[in-house]
Amino acid sequence: MSEMFDRVAASFHAQGLMHTMGASLRQVSDGEVQIALPYSKALSQQHGFLHAGAVTSVVDSAAGYAALTKAPAGYEVVTAEFKINLLRPAIGEHFVAVGKVQNAGKLLTVCTGELLAYTADIDATPKVVALMQATIVNVKY
Amino acid sequence: MSEMFDRVAASFHAQGLMHTMGASLRQVSDGEVQIALPYSKALSQQHGFLHAGAVTSVVDSAAGYAALTKAPAGYEVVTAEFKINLLRPAIGEHFVAVGKVQNAGKLLTVCTGELLAYTADIDATPKVVALMQATIVNVKY
Amino acid sequence: MSEMFDRVAASFHAQGLMHTMGASLRQVSDGEVQIALPYSKALSQQHGFLHAGAVTSVVDSAAGYAALTKAPAGYEVVTAEFKINLLRPAIGEHFVAVGKVQNAGKLLTVCTGELLAYTADIDATPKVVALMQATIVNVKY
Amino acid sequence: MSEMFDRVAASFHAQGLMHTMGASLRQVSDGEVQIALPYSKALSQQHGFLHAGAVTSVVDSAAGYAALTKAPAGYEVVTAEFKINLLRPAIGEHFVAVGKVQNAGKLLTVCTGELLAYTADIDATPKVVALMQATIVNVKY
Repeated sequence: MSEMFDRVAASFHAQGLMHTMGASLRQVSDGEVQIALPYSKALSQQHGFLHAGAVTSVVDSAAGYAALTKAPAGYEVVTAEFKINLLRPAIGEHFVAVGKVQNAGKLLTVCTGELLAYTADIDATPKVVALMQATIVNVKY
Repeated sequence: MSEMFDRVAASFHAQGLMHTMGASLRQVSDGEVQIALPYSKALSQQHGFLHAGAVTSVVDSAAGYAALTKAPAGYEVVTAEFKINLLRPAIGEHFVAVGKVQNAGKLLTVCTGELLAYTADIDATPKVVALMQATIVNVKY
Repeated sequence: MSEMFDRVAASFHAQGLMHTMGASLRQVSDGEVQIALPYSKALSQQHGFLHAGAVTSVVDSAAGYAALTKAPAGYEVVTAEFKINLLRPAIGEHFVAVGKVQNAGKLLTVCTGELLAYTADIDATPKVVALMQATIVNVKY
Repeated sequence: MSEMFDRVAASFHAQGLMHTMGASLRQVSDGEVQIALPYSKALSQQHGFLHAGAVTSVVDSAAGYAALTKAPAGYEVVTAEFKINLLRPAIGEHFVAVGKVQNAGKLLTVCTGELLAYTADIDATPKVVALMQATIVNVKY
């Protein structure tokens, strides 16, 4: 794996929440990170769909790690804020969160993110169930 | 317990994610709901603090249930979108998410939310670690 | 011009603010609207760049009218909320706001928007100076 | 007037847009700024109400200047992003935008803002027509 993947993976695997949720790092490239999340009843809202909090957790992580791929050496990233639209019920067998850098400044990186839902029908096009826009800060450590 | 509490509690206890996180319903009043969350390593980000996804999950739920206390009979609520600012690292022994209705329309309810962090020092004032503004839709069921 | 253009133009030309700002309708297609805005000192912030309020006004209008192109007959649209990131100073000779529908539901339409800045150098690529994510409501009239 | 008022007023009066809109600085205190805006047809949307862009312009300015009252000497402020909910049609004879600092960090200040609408009936309580949550950056000049 690449140095960039290692940088993201080291942080990802230190996150108790990603482990608790059963999420895994799917892809890391320059300015884009993908996180996979299988559906589980343990992550549901009251109707059994994926909870907005679970949706947000993986999309926020994907966006934050996308920003990390653009951060200068010696810096880590902290999410300052984000906004998410929940477009439809998050119904699916598994989900993929995609975070993408839209603009990387010295101090602030702006990312977009989305959550794709996949059903058992492998020929079906995945549905976008959420859209995020996030502001991430580069912080020296 | 009141009818309003029962309405919120029935939905809250059907949420797999709230159970997985160890969250509990702390208070339900007209236009305001509080959810308690003890700190757990299972909910952490890479430095051991509470993950932004966990922060968001409980504040979103508190805001949504605050909206539910104002929804007409025969309606339930769905979060359309929210925005959250993470003001400082979510460090604490336990946390309280507070959701408040700011404006309840026929169709859309706008809520604010915050997360308070409490340390072991019981004399210390809790710190506000996150601020949310959310739009929630009334949906007939 | 098309019926769709006429529907948007009728509303656009009734907006006092668009006239005051000197904005014009540039393009209307299914799910996308563009608004042009020449720079003017009358729209500046304290350093002479385009004011964030002027940026927001045209991007919000472009997003709202993009939603209108997808609204059912007999409905008009109202912006419920939006979030905008101001990526860099809005420096340019003229600007184009682009609004695009990302998801059109029965009740709510989610759009993204951006503002492109063009300088006197006609060979230069325009810069994206702002990114918006907006929620728009279909309302019967 | 105080030094704090002078600091804000100097920047406010350099903004072409505030002058074009007819807005005036109403009050400056530590962590809070108010801007007054009389209604004008020149600022309207298609039904004659105050345009969301005009609403946003004054609330964003009030929030930004509230942040400026907390910025260290030698710094000015730039809005990184904001989110605004438009709660109801902005109908009124005049409006007051109120910006308040919620948390002032070294680098980022988080503010809330609202727009109050006043009608001709001077005994009526003003209505909150919009709610904002904004992130503002301290920048050395």
